[in-house]
Amino acid sequence: MGSNWDIEASLMAVITLLTDFGLQDEYVGVLKGVIYSINPKAVIVDLNHNIEARNITQASHLLKAAMPFFPENSIHLAIVDPGVGSDRAILVSRQDGKYTIAPDNGLLGPLWEKYIPEKVVKLNNQRYFRHPVSRTFHGRDIFAPAAAHLSLGVKMDEFGPVVKPDQAVDLRHAKPTWHSAHSISGEVVWIDHFGNLITNIELEDLVRLGADRAPEGIQVVSGSVCISGISESYSQASSGQVLAIIGSRNCLEIAVNQASAASILGLVSGSVVSVRKLTL
Amino acid sequence: MGSNWDIEASLMAVITLLTDFGLQDEYVGVLKGVIYSINPKAVIVDLNHNIEARNITQASHLLKAAMPFFPENSIHLAIVDPGVGSDRAILVSRQDGKYTIAPDNGLLGPLWEKYIPEKVVKLNNQRYFRHPVSRTFHGRDIFAPAAAHLSLGVKMDEFGPVVKPDQAVDLRHAKPTWHSAHSISGEVVWIDHFGNLITNIELEDLVRLGADRAPEGIQVVSGSVCISGISESYSQASSGQVLAIIGSRNCLEIAVNQASAASILGLVSGSVVSVRKLTL
Amino acid sequence: MGSNWDIEASLMAVITLLTDFGLQDEYVGVLKGVIYSINPKAVIVDLNHNIEARNITQASHLLKAAMPFFPENSIHLAIVDPGVGSDRAILVSRQDGKYTIAPDNGLLGPLWEKYIPEKVVKLNNQRYFRHPVSRTFHGRDIFAPAAAHLSLGVKMDEFGPVVKPDQAVDLRHAKPTWHSAHSISGEVVWIDHFGNLITNIELEDLVRLGADRAPEGIQVVSGSVCISGISESYSQASSGQVLAIIGSRNCLEIAVNQASAASILGLVSGSVVSVRKLTL
Repeated sequence: MGSNWDIEASLMAVITLLTDFGLQDEYVGVLKGVIYSINPKAVIVDLNHNIEARNITQASHLLKAAMPFFPENSIHLAIVDPGVGSDRAILVSRQDGKYTIAPDNGLLGPLWEKYIPEKVVKLNNQRYFRHPVSRTFHGRDIFAPAAAHLSLGVKMDEFGPVVKPDQAVDLRHAKPTWHSAHSISGEVVWIDHFGNLITNIELEDLVRLGADRAPEGIQVVSGSVCISGISESYSQASSGQVLAIIGSRNCLEIAVNQASAASILGLVSGSVVSVRKLTL
Repeated sequence: MGSNWDIEASLMAVITLLTDFGLQDEYVGVLKGVIYSINPKAVIVDLNHNIEARNITQASHLLKAAMPFFPENSIHLAIVDPGVGSDRAILVSRQDGKYTIAPDNGLLGPLWEKYIPEKVVKLNNQRYFRHPVSRTFHGRDIFAPAAAHLSLGVKMDEFGPVVKPDQAVDLRHAKPTWHSAHSISGEVVWIDHFGNLITNIELEDLVRLGADRAPEGIQVVSGSVCISGISESYSQASSGQVLAIIGSRNCLEIAVNQASAASILGLVSGSVVSVRKLTL
Repeated sequence: MGSNWDIEASLMAVITLLTDFGLQDEYVGVLKGVIYSINPKAVIVDLNHNIEARNITQASHLLKAAMPFFPENSIHLAIVDPGVGSDRAILVSRQDGKYTIAPDNGLLGPLWEKYIPEKVVKLNNQRYFRHPVSRTFHGRDIFAPAAAHLSLGVKMDEFGPVVKPDQAVDLRHAKPTWHSAHSISGEVVWIDHFGNLITNIELEDLVRLGADRAPEGIQVVSGSVCISGISESYSQASSGQVLAIIGSRNCLEIAVNQASAASILGLVSGSVVSVRKLTL
């Protein structure tokens, strides 16, 4: 009974889909049809289909932010693949107890900075492809079938040869710069649905500046915006007031309580954000 | 066998998600990851993620309209929560055989007008939270884990102390006004994807006016629009013709057959709609 | 054990939803609530809800493109139903091993050109309706309950009398025209999220022109665009270059590598596309 449960639980592995397909066409539905054709018990989650077309960086940030909240052994498909049909590789990897299947175009770079991959294989065993394989829709013909087979218990080694992560294409992405032990500059890397401006300055960086002990001694500056102190919640500011906060991605956010900081402050993706510790 | 089925059936409880998160970020996906991490057999339905940011009224109307169509014991998360991180309470309640988990900001007011809550508890037992609890994303750290635990059979009393519904914040929302036994005024409270103008005048109100016995004796007026009679289907009007109808929410709608009433008639959310019984 | 699996597998039948409802209202969620109320083990896939309001042709193309990728016995609801509430019939049919439930408004025409229906019945057995049946939302009251009952093993004959497909309303839709054995004209019938222009000229047509043996001898012309040869992948063209390709729908597409052909070329839905074999 115990082992039946295990088998069943593994058959019900969560498969998440992250694409730049949008929701206008049949493409996302077709991915699911292919997966259910192979594993009718798969549990499929739409992680996001609104990634800007071909924006690998955006997808890499979102995947890194979301993956920690999924169960052990979940399988994360990331199909932002401008090189589809070329000879770019597709990688199956395992890190932090979860699987990813993504093109070798750097999408996994930010994730691998945080979680060292336990194993990476190049997906080239045609036995696990859907045939005939098109040259335009590898999501349907290669990624989705591989995810479904993985959810049925096929071992990583079955999909192709082990490759070293450092053989994989790396993605350059914005990292904050330390100017001194008291000053760091980063940038806005994501603007969410509420207009919150999410930076690449992480909680760890702020702790290094002493923000955990003396949050009121921190100054956040971007363009003409200057904020003193780090707030603990949006509602700590009055309505319409700008604030700095550690957001749900564990990164520094500039926000406006009850409104869109992006609309009000005129900051955009790429805007430089500087943080310094005031010597009081 | 019977009891196994029961257990299984309860593990497969439907959890619906109603938020103002939109679909641009990882937030909705993360809610699902948290739920499946606790109950891998949960059945999750996206009720709606396109509620206008912080629009509690809109969410309350949608939840009230949708809940009756879900199975007994389904669990409805409603996360439109401008007060996140403040000391506003989160309530777990049961009404009409279904559970809701929502902030105590009045979102449940319209629902409770229709269905008297059987029990309401304040969700404050940290045992059922995800830790650490952020100050910006209680959806992920409090609402979603509570829904998952509830779907696994945790009793309402486990989540926190019973509170009286009348201690809960009530939401003022537009109700129609009776001018005489023959005349009522309401307003447009929802414009759907097809441009149908849905009012807060309910079937019961129209029955009180005699619309069930003599629908042709009813006159509906809004701005310069004047409609005689209540139609039984859109196609009863010719193409492009305006009509009044009892729509799928069991409320009076102003519609145009094969077209968008909102675009053609220039009526908006809040437009006053009057209905009277003609004395023939 | 084997037969338990079969029963379970059949209970887990995939039901897909194709509508023009959009995602602003509760309508899609309500369909799912109704289905799970009848079959809690249903597996529901959103095929597409962004069909243009009342655009039957668009829905018919998408359904035909997506259906082959779903498992045997999957059930495809297609609710683009401008005649809701009129006396138009609703059909349950089976073709290519899959079920469809759709209004008899021609939506299934293109599908039936490709797959001869094995059986078609008129859905009129009120036993399988949700009551009371509204005049405005048959998706909720007739289509969804029928899909759920079908997924529980109710036989097609139970739903109503067999009708001949040729009694069903047919949809006129654009077909390509052969001018000679060396020349064919079709049109753009779909523009996808990436701006790829998908035509109604199928792989078979191109094979007839000899494109499989000598793809470089094919010329594709639309407006001022003239393309020589059929590419095998988007990346075979350089970035920003226009190309012709057999896309994932197995139809001729005009695309621009790494960009939107629709934006760059100014072609629209309905633009004529001609293909001819060059006599070299």
